[in-house]
Amino acid sequence: MSVLVVGSIALDHVKTPVEEQSELLGGSASYAAVSASFFSNVNLVGVVGDDFPKKHIEFFGDRKIDLAGLQIVEGKTFRWSGEYHWDLNTRETRSVELNVFEHFTPDLPSAFTDTPYVLLANIAPSLQSHVLDQMSRARFVIADTMDLWISIAKDDLLALLKRVDMLILNDSEARQLTGETSLIRAGAAIRKMGPKFVAIKKGEHGCLLFGENAFFSCAAFPLEDIHDPTGAGDTFAGGVAGYLASLNHEQVTFEHLRKAVVYGSVLASYNVEAFSLERLRSLTHQDLEHRYQSFRLMSHFEILG
Amino acid sequence: MSVLVVGSIALDHVKTPVEEQSELLGGSASYAAVSASFFSNVNLVGVVGDDFPKKHIEFFGDRKIDLAGLQIVEGKTFRWSGEYHWDLNTRETRSVELNVFEHFTPDLPSAFTDTPYVLLANIAPSLQSHVLDQMSRARFVIADTMDLWISIAKDDLLALLKRVDMLILNDSEARQLTGETSLIRAGAAIRKMGPKFVAIKKGEHGCLLFGENAFFSCAAFPLEDIHDPTGAGDTFAGGVAGYLASLNHEQVTFEHLRKAVVYGSVLASYNVEAFSLERLRSLTHQDLEHRYQSFRLMSHFEILG
Repeated sequence: MSVLVVGSIALDHVKTPVEEQSELLGGSASYAAVSASFFSNVNLVGVVGDDFPKKHIEFFGDRKIDLAGLQIVEGKTFRWSGEYHWDLNTRETRSVELNVFEHFTPDLPSAFTDTPYVLLANIAPSLQSHVLDQMSRARFVIADTMDLWISIAKDDLLALLKRVDMLILNDSEARQLTGETSLIRAGAAIRKMGPKFVAIKKGEHGCLLFGENAFFSCAAFPLEDIHDPTGAGDTFAGGVAGYLASLNHEQVTFEHLRKAVVYGSVLASYNVEAFSLERLRSLTHQDLEHRYQSFRLMSHFEILG
Repeated sequence: MSVLVVGSIALDHVKTPVEEQSELLGGSASYAAVSASFFSNVNLVGVVGDDFPKKHIEFFGDRKIDLAGLQIVEGKTFRWSGEYHWDLNTRETRSVELNVFEHFTPDLPSAFTDTPYVLLANIAPSLQSHVLDQMSRARFVIADTMDLWISIAKDDLLALLKRVDMLILNDSEARQLTGETSLIRAGAAIRKMGPKFVAIKKGEHGCLLFGENAFFSCAAFPLEDIHDPTGAGDTFAGGVAGYLASLNHEQVTFEHLRKAVVYGSVLASYNVEAFSLERLRSLTHQDLEHRYQSFRLMSHFEILG
């Protein structure tokens, strides 16, 4: 089945303690769409300027991502610039130029409105709600968000949460949204805001998945060399959504989500091995299965077969 | 089989944001010995003053802990006082009175010198080495340590590391000892210092186990209410050592250690539910097995049976 991915498409400038690269393909929807495409068809909704390199559009096309919802408008593409500190866990945004993204309205081609799986990657919650207004048969809706929206658009976000099946956010955002220091309490509190499932990302500590009377702790893959953490969370969300769409069950269960967050973590762990989406270009399904098995070995303590 | 536990025995004063209690049974050896006693016989080596309450000695005895190595000397028992912040992750030591512990030398009764499993709970590394000097047939030696010894007795600690099979320490101590920000690199670096196995404790994020070309990430049990985190690390170490001793294999393998750190985590997760060692008093083997199964459910993503 297909997954609809809506979010930002950007050209990034990324500086780490050892490398610096510019005009990189970036943005929440780019990472999420390419990641999801490993498992299912993807309908992409986003906006770029007329300066957006053709090679990136071709890359999306090569991944069999349907670009009917890609708006190419006059002006410059959204640009983001960030710098990572030595531990690669903390980063500073150096500049943001919204450009054509400033007036983006995610209007869906009619062919996209009945896509069964929906990933609302990180954009303003009012725009995420606007997407849902247009969907007719969404079976499972995942939303991602960020600290900015919790600060400046909390009411919009709370309204959105009543309409989504799953929220993905990181640990500091979960604490900010709920006022709880304990992530266990935060996960439970967010479920009361609407989403049946919540995934709290903890970076190098993996992620926590919350459901009704159900809890799963997913380990992080032990990487010694991280080259660029940009987009790890979006890649994770895309992998989760894409895997669920590939299962194509009438109802998404907690058992499905266990494996989905492992596949999301597998994809994210590969993605940070190189700048931008470079690692995903050469990634094979064999690579995915190989690391999926590694996740089993590193997190199961009763190894069966 | 038996495990020898050497470390501190203390009377603690603990203050959390909601409770405050004094004259509590504490110290690294108390937690570790009682925890280990759930799985195996324990030979305890430590020192207390003549003010040490008889009820605590009786408690050790009830747990079938051999007290032939317990020195009761004139003077006051070691006292520690600490206060926890709201998140219960950070604590401040308010006062330390070494008292009789200041001149403690862990001399072993001859009956203890051939104990096959050894847990050197947190005391000065020179004293930990002194214990090993007396052991004739130690099969598997685990050492715990703390930031203080890395700061003031690093040479002693490095000498000890060449003589132990496994080091247990927390994340900040692993970073301090190795100068690595990445815990993955830190674990590998510590293995090069001597121990074949390393467990890095990450508090609410669980723990990481390192072996030769082997890695295991153990989740933390999702507790909503933590009453007193004191001794969690010592209880963990005691559970690991006790479980290994109960298996009584000629050689400890990584597969044994996976389960051992889960049992250690189970015991630690119960222990923090109440002040001091109170929770361990009423804990049953059925409780242990119940939570062991919960660990499976929360960390395995392919649930078999």
